[in-house]
Amino acid sequence: MQIPAYDDNNIFAKILRGEAPAHKVYEDEQTFAFMDIMPMGEGHTLVIPREPAVTMFDLSAEGAAALIQTTQKVAHAVRAAFEPEGVVCAQFSGAPAGQTVFHIHFHIIPRWQNVEMNLHARVMQDHDVLADHARRITEKLG
Amino acid sequence: MQIPAYDDNNIFAKILRGEAPAHKVYEDEQTFAFMDIMPMGEGHTLVIPREPAVTMFDLSAEGAAALIQTTQKVAHAVRAAFEPEGVVCAQFSGAPAGQTVFHIHFHIIPRWQNVEMNLHARVMQDHDVLADHARRITEKLG
Repeated sequence: MQIPAYDDNNIFAKILRGEAPAHKVYEDEQTFAFMDIMPMGEGHTLVIPREPAVTMFDLSAEGAAALIQTTQKVAHAVRAAFEPEGVVCAQFSGAPAGQTVFHIHFHIIPRWQNVEMNLHARVMQDHDVLADHARRITEKLG
Repeated sequence: MQIPAYDDNNIFAKILRGEAPAHKVYEDEQTFAFMDIMPMGEGHTLVIPREPAVTMFDLSAEGAAALIQTTQKVAHAVRAAFEPEGVVCAQFSGAPAGQTVFHIHFHIIPRWQNVEMNLHARVMQDHDVLADHARRITEKLG
């Protein structure tokens, strides 16, 4: 696989710069977390580094550590907010792996035994619902 | 979701203690990596912490950092060895999320555009094939 050059105008870069809206749940110096607007399940949240990296292969080791630690922190809050039966944490490098935005991101996807996951990036969720979900997660983050 | 108590006799605990065999590709003080014996795709590798944790929710923040950094390091070698078109890094907490061994692990799964992923944990791969794949990855780790 070829890693494309980082594109400063990808949608997550714009979210990080405040040029595009997002249903934010958490941010710190190195990372940012927000609701996926086309969720694969209720409470589907994304965690990204501020570092401009496309995939796991061009992210720094420090960036990877910050990314997983925020993923862990936000996953705790997602679990508390939605009380799922399981949680998937997944990261896709390259379009054939399922990557659709070329700024590295971890998916936090709540799972229930008898609920199928939606196909990725197909149906836009209502913004009021996403705002409510972000509020529920943020509350659990304290 | 309830996090079950850590069971010292799970198969990954036995692998860490050298009581069960594994096609190892890497180890250090905090982590261990080996071939998945029921691979979802060619080169499917697992990375685990030595820390006895069941899920993302009972793993320490230090353990999470070590786990993702080894995942990143091994993923580089898997990519070099198998030249996939994409790579999935995934972690499943809880059986409804797809967890089958209750010691936390990251999956590194090479992906190709026109090759479907196998269903998880269904078909045992031949040990000669796994040994060859482990050798190819280990070579790339130097």
